[in-house]
Amino acid sequence: MGATAGKWILAPVLFLASIAATAAEAAKRPAWTFDTAEAFDATAIPAYAGRHEAAYAYIDAHQPQHIANLQRWVRQRSISAQDDGIDDMAQLLAGDLTALGFQEVELVQTPGHPGVFGYYDAGAEKTLVVYMMYDVQPVEQNWQISDPFAGTLVENELGTVLMARGATNQKGPQRAFLNAVEAIIRSEGTLPVNLYVVAEGEEELGSPNFGAVLEPYLPRLRQADGAFFPMNIQDRSGAAALNLGVKGIIYFELEARGGDWGGPVDAEVHGSLKALVDSPALRLVQAIASMTSADGNTIEIPGYYDAVRAPTLDEQRLINALAATQDDSALQKALGVRQWIDGISGRQALVRNLYDPTLNINGIWSGYTGEGTKTILPHKATAKIDSRLPPGLEPDAAYRMIRAHLHAHGFDDLALRPTSGYPAAATQADSPLVQATISVLNKYGATPRVSPWLAGSAPFYQFTRTLGLPFVFGGLGHGSGAHAPNEYMLLRPAAGVRAAGLADIEKSYVDLLHALAAARGE
Amino acid sequence: MGATAGKWILAPVLFLASIAATAAEAAKRPAWTFDTAEAFDATAIPAYAGRHEAAYAYIDAHQPQHIANLQRWVRQRSISAQDDGIDDMAQLLAGDLTALGFQEVELVQTPGHPGVFGYYDAGAEKTLVVYMMYDVQPVEQNWQISDPFAGTLVENELGTVLMARGATNQKGPQRAFLNAVEAIIRSEGTLPVNLYVVAEGEEELGSPNFGAVLEPYLPRLRQADGAFFPMNIQDRSGAAALNLGVKGIIYFELEARGGDWGGPVDAEVHGSLKALVDSPALRLVQAIASMTSADGNTIEIPGYYDAVRAPTLDEQRLINALAATQDDSALQKALGVRQWIDGISGRQALVRNLYDPTLNINGIWSGYTGEGTKTILPHKATAKIDSRLPPGLEPDAAYRMIRAHLHAHGFDDLALRPTSGYPAAATQADSPLVQATISVLNKYGATPRVSPWLAGSAPFYQFTRTLGLPFVFGGLGHGSGAHAPNEYMLLRPAAGVRAAGLADIEKSYVDLLHALAAARGE
Repeated sequence: MGATAGKWILAPVLFLASIAATAAEAAKRPAWTFDTAEAFDATAIPAYAGRHEAAYAYIDAHQPQHIANLQRWVRQRSISAQDDGIDDMAQLLAGDLTALGFQEVELVQTPGHPGVFGYYDAGAEKTLVVYMMYDVQPVEQNWQISDPFAGTLVENELGTVLMARGATNQKGPQRAFLNAVEAIIRSEGTLPVNLYVVAEGEEELGSPNFGAVLEPYLPRLRQADGAFFPMNIQDRSGAAALNLGVKGIIYFELEARGGDWGGPVDAEVHGSLKALVDSPALRLVQAIASMTSADGNTIEIPGYYDAVRAPTLDEQRLINALAATQDDSALQKALGVRQWIDGISGRQALVRNLYDPTLNINGIWSGYTGEGTKTILPHKATAKIDSRLPPGLEPDAAYRMIRAHLHAHGFDDLALRPTSGYPAAATQADSPLVQATISVLNKYGATPRVSPWLAGSAPFYQFTRTLGLPFVFGGLGHGSGAHAPNEYMLLRPAAGVRAAGLADIEKSYVDLLHALAAARGE
Repeated sequence: MGATAGKWILAPVLFLASIAATAAEAAKRPAWTFDTAEAFDATAIPAYAGRHEAAYAYIDAHQPQHIANLQRWVRQRSISAQDDGIDDMAQLLAGDLTALGFQEVELVQTPGHPGVFGYYDAGAEKTLVVYMMYDVQPVEQNWQISDPFAGTLVENELGTVLMARGATNQKGPQRAFLNAVEAIIRSEGTLPVNLYVVAEGEEELGSPNFGAVLEPYLPRLRQADGAFFPMNIQDRSGAAALNLGVKGIIYFELEARGGDWGGPVDAEVHGSLKALVDSPALRLVQAIASMTSADGNTIEIPGYYDAVRAPTLDEQRLINALAATQDDSALQKALGVRQWIDGISGRQALVRNLYDPTLNINGIWSGYTGEGTKTILPHKATAKIDSRLPPGLEPDAAYRMIRAHLHAHGFDDLALRPTSGYPAAATQADSPLVQATISVLNKYGATPRVSPWLAGSAPFYQFTRTLGLPFVFGGLGHGSGAHAPNEYMLLRPAAGVRAAGLADIEKSYVDLLHALAAARGE
């Protein structure tokens, strides 16, 4: 998954719900009341009971080749930010689809890196869209292996892991899914569902052209029954987190600079001139400050909270279940945070995290930032600000309210430059795709914690809204280190390690496709 | 002069007064009323009439040697920030004083670079303290000459200039003053006044140890009749600006970082966590915003304006005179500013510039400041803030009020780290030293615009308060490029250029010492 905005930004940890806000801020942040104390019970969904022994046997017999497939993918560089290996990786993916028997395989030209489209017509009743990203992040220093593109297998306390850029983000789980597809086709003759693959090579750039990849196929894709993004969602202990959506986001730069209104226009002036010369830096600070309460935690932009829709009964049940096992202290410790805002915890924290829009300074800079003292009145000041949007709060509306607020407070001299904006995406827990996913996870002893959505953001609205499909991103498996050194995916767990290995991951994907085929219609 | 705070920060341009403030802010910024419409008239001070022909003749006859003296000084590197040549320059200065006949010459050890103390006992009634700085700024790229330490003479449209680091800031005017001292001693046998020289090698570092240089000599220095800092105060056209003081300054870093109160403690967290995690960046922004009005121009720290003392009658007369020739448009154009705060001009602008304390962001930074988007909630945010202090507003009081304000607004979690702080300094226009200086300038056709003080800051309180002396920084002569490439001092003006050359500068210093000797006592 990508880490920058206008992208697929999943928070490193998952959590989420509250009833009463606190003190003076309470009037402005909504205090959601829950109508039910019932809790969603993922264990109540029967474990998938189907057995597909031929495919399982094929998987077991072909583990060396399947591991080699993952290695082949990570060995092909595909750093989108550096245009390094992109076209070769697109060709490699397209070639793999062709080899699997996809009847249609096309490279999709875009203003950026090409997309890859594939269709496997199984003559089946049900159709699944599989999303893939074939690009990876650039490589940092400090890897424990000499070459992050060598496809190195490393033995450690978890067992055998594939350590490579892209191992878990996202080549590993994606090629594991195609290994499963191969296993079904070779052992059963065809797939239980028709399969679209839509892949982009710019996920790490914020998916700027993913709409253009989908565009030629929209009428067909909209006829599908669901969309799926293969992903390792188990942690080291084997615990699985299934998130049924994401928040939306707007990300923008806010900049003050001197002009007709005042301030230095082209360059800094001496700091002693402040009594005569307006300060763009103070203007920016005042403009940002006007948007939140003094503690920075309540957004004071009129209407901003009003657009957020209330938790549905289904979401309340999910949150009640999450709250029962929520461990705020552990999450805080992992993050290096000593308390949440206002000292909240438990369900209150879960609800805030899911239903509060945010306003956050990602970066701010102006003037002299080096050692010692320099006395200047800088001519410009800039901030990178993002706002996370729960379902109901649309990006256009958020931008409109922020602009109206700045106008009402006399900050028309500031420039607001949108970088990205997309809405939230959420899939209902009772959708057949979600139910099938949970039933398969249950089969493998990986009953997930299920959240209505993540506090993080990704443009998954492309599936839920553009295509109008239920969308699941998940799957058995464990990896770590996306966007960091020593990225890995676990392939062969050591004794006692409960996170799944590659063979079980592939079998679970076999099961998932069959479960979908057997599910009652949408 | 230095350019960093905790230092001698003179604004690049000079100006200064107002009566009515504007609109809603008026209640908070003081609206000074003037009690007189009289204007100070520098031309009414008779031009110095003394003639010291022997010294003048010596100066004329020794111009090659005197120019060589300036070259010798600038050729000796003395970059305090890089400890480059400092000790050699201190020795060179001390040696020159000894050669001139100073009976006492001492290197003064400090925790930093050494000071130089010298005393020339002329057996005279009057005594002058001459301040010198022997250090220079580091050297930038992009000089038009190959070596800023070669003492290069360059012919240009102004005439012959000495182009070198330190040429005008401050070796040129200082050695010109010593050339004048030499001329008097060699031609008249002794000086008309006793002379202390106190020099430091850390002016460009903010004069952190200048107090330690003065300390051993305080009882003696306090017996003097005035203190003087040789400086070229003519512009290219020959117009002279005499400033009788400086504002004080406090310069501090304000920093918010995660801690027990909330926020990430040791490192950034994912930006999507803002709904749960306090933002140090927003806290810093809110804290700074709380200190000013929404336009950034009125300081909302209780008591801040109350401490400023009202313009005296003498200052009102100076300001009335300045207002008569104030050209705001020209100053704005030079600065690249399209209007002053609130569209003020003329006397109103002069008064604001001189009597308003300021609060200015020199720099602010937090989080990601590179290209594109990165979604983080930074764990710390820092601003470099300065406040200029008119007479009456003391540094300790300013810090106390700011801390009290932050405390009252609940910002105790922020760290306030003072970098420097010193009070304003001002000398009365009717002091004999000022009168003598103006009379000499008048003699050379360089009648100055006289301001009560600069909006810029320098620790000249060491002279006016620590020593309790009238203090003048000024003198005939023109230079430019302090702290910049192609620094120069004009030595031999081309025909038609009215700024003084070295010979006249030296003669004017001869005159000044004699004028002081002849002045009625303090």
